[in-house]
Amino acid sequence: MSKRSLAALALSCLFVALASPAEARERPRWSIVLHGGAGVIERAQLSPDVEAQYRASLENAVRAGGDVLDRGGSSLDAVEAVIQRMEDDPLYNAGRGAVFTADGRNELDASIMDGRTRAAGAVAGVTRTRHPISLARRVMEASPHVMLIGEGAEAFARTQNLEEVDPSFFFTERRWRALEQTLRERNLPIPQRPQGAPAQRDAALEGVDDHRFGTVGVVAMDMRGDIAAGTSTGGTTAKRWGRVGDTPVIGAGTYAQNGVCGVSATGTGEYFIRLSVARSICARIELDGANVQQAVDVVIGELQEIGGDGGVIAMDRRGRIAYGMNTSGMYRARWRAGEAPVVQIFADEPAR
Amino acid sequence: MSKRSLAALALSCLFVALASPAEARERPRWSIVLHGGAGVIERAQLSPDVEAQYRASLENAVRAGGDVLDRGGSSLDAVEAVIQRMEDDPLYNAGRGAVFTADGRNELDASIMDGRTRAAGAVAGVTRTRHPISLARRVMEASPHVMLIGEGAEAFARTQNLEEVDPSFFFTERRWRALEQTLRERNLPIPQRPQGAPAQRDAALEGVDDHRFGTVGVVAMDMRGDIAAGTSTGGTTAKRWGRVGDTPVIGAGTYAQNGVCGVSATGTGEYFIRLSVARSICARIELDGANVQQAVDVVIGELQEIGGDGGVIAMDRRGRIAYGMNTSGMYRARWRAGEAPVVQIFADEPAR
Repeated sequence: MSKRSLAALALSCLFVALASPAEARERPRWSIVLHGGAGVIERAQLSPDVEAQYRASLENAVRAGGDVLDRGGSSLDAVEAVIQRMEDDPLYNAGRGAVFTADGRNELDASIMDGRTRAAGAVAGVTRTRHPISLARRVMEASPHVMLIGEGAEAFARTQNLEEVDPSFFFTERRWRALEQTLRERNLPIPQRPQGAPAQRDAALEGVDDHRFGTVGVVAMDMRGDIAAGTSTGGTTAKRWGRVGDTPVIGAGTYAQNGVCGVSATGTGEYFIRLSVARSICARIELDGANVQQAVDVVIGELQEIGGDGGVIAMDRRGRIAYGMNTSGMYRARWRAGEAPVVQIFADEPAR
Repeated sequence: MSKRSLAALALSCLFVALASPAEARERPRWSIVLHGGAGVIERAQLSPDVEAQYRASLENAVRAGGDVLDRGGSSLDAVEAVIQRMEDDPLYNAGRGAVFTADGRNELDASIMDGRTRAAGAVAGVTRTRHPISLARRVMEASPHVMLIGEGAEAFARTQNLEEVDPSFFFTERRWRALEQTLRERNLPIPQRPQGAPAQRDAALEGVDDHRFGTVGVVAMDMRGDIAAGTSTGGTTAKRWGRVGDTPVIGAGTYAQNGVCGVSATGTGEYFIRLSVARSICARIELDGANVQQAVDVVIGELQEIGGDGGVIAMDRRGRIAYGMNTSGMYRARWRAGEAPVVQIFADEPAR
């Protein structure tokens, strides 16, 4: 180990010694944080109307999750309930409103993890299950497996009586236009408009450049102190070849471990996989004595170094919340019992 | 942090201080380690003939990799060359000789990682690409992506002119019999013998209970000190629903990071995903000052705690090699420049 590392280790030792009295501090009764994607989100591009839509949606979502926790519900239930909402909300790139593949399909990925047992479930390449997050949870709870992909995952969904929809359920005009534009830029053929898609109309929400982002994720701690995390996405516009990002990769897009932390990530998934971003943040808290914000900052720094973009939400075992991003914005909200919910969009926006 | 953790941290500090002079030690010119799966491998079950086949195959494979490195080849080239060999060898559950899904298909997963850049590539659910490890490498080097799944991955393979084979290429009588037996035990229907499979004959290699294991993996360090790791598998006999294990999950089955370590894992993949086994071993070396054997032992201990079975091979930045397993055996071999190759099978077998 270099002198520099040794000094860092000594500092960690010191930090741990100094931080120990904080142990005694009470955690809030419950705590929840969510994101709706990170990316180039500039004040100048976001009309007041669209901004208001996002803020209302984020606040409603975090309130829905907090309500579950406040009634004594589990962190897993809160994570699933909030993500189901966001999957149904066309504002986000998950479920309805997901981006399209180059073939003009919606291929959805999701994962969930239970910090109490470190059980996990993940699905990739799903096209007919209304709520991929619920399918991930059924994989975790009702199968011996962690990860199911493609048609096989959907065959399992049918054994679980999960709601199946026609693929056109996920269609939104805004995402279709984004696909057409991206394919034109790449000189790739534009596929036929999907069967069952509504007749063409004006695309709402123009001007928000989140075609690579918009993933949704939640981390929650319930009254028992159990942490859960989940993430759901449509991936990237015009993706090809069965491309899968970090969302269904446990340890990359999602991780939860009681006594340590919970994380959900959003961004250029390839880079998040390469760094095992979610697991790395937890490892820094567990092994390096970092606090949750330090751990997030170090790993987002590493992400930046290798050329990745995006953000994370994280929570430690005392329900403390940290954000990190190297983009100009991340749709996000948090709420801790006894406090007021806080909604933020821009990177430099103070918590109010 | 608890007093116990604080004591552990103090011990780590001490360990680091004591270990520092070892920094000066030269690493070997190159180093390579491989596995061919872990599992219930008992002396009583392995006939002398079959044991000799495995030992010869493992030695030939590690020699092939060492030869690449000794000629100045990259660790990535060594990893790919050795895994290609093992994919072609019906002794292992990867490529030809892969286990069958409940539907009677071979669905192959693989991943590779370059420790120099932490670039990575992974494929899951591949059915026609002769060498899934080479496809994973092409994903890493010739696509902007890290993970491709199913038919999409194979469409990408065709753009790369990788060798495509009829699915019957992967067929072996031994694995087909294992499928029939497993499906009978589970009261599941037995699918038709695949088109193109050879006429039925005596199954070789009976008595080796590796139907859940047999994954292959390699970690290598080349003369430049660059570490690479790769893993390839057919998964588990009678798998359903597009089940994917840890092999194509970067951070679970495979990880490589120059200056820290390289890891390849084999076993009950679900548990390896839940712990991010490969990334966790590297994190303990990077953040906790553990040496590679300590890091492996701690994580295999955690695996055992949550009910997982299997083993790992690992290498640190000085080319030192560690094994860990909680099974009775793991097919494995290692070779460091200037030493003799060592082949081992049973857990308690001394290095000779």
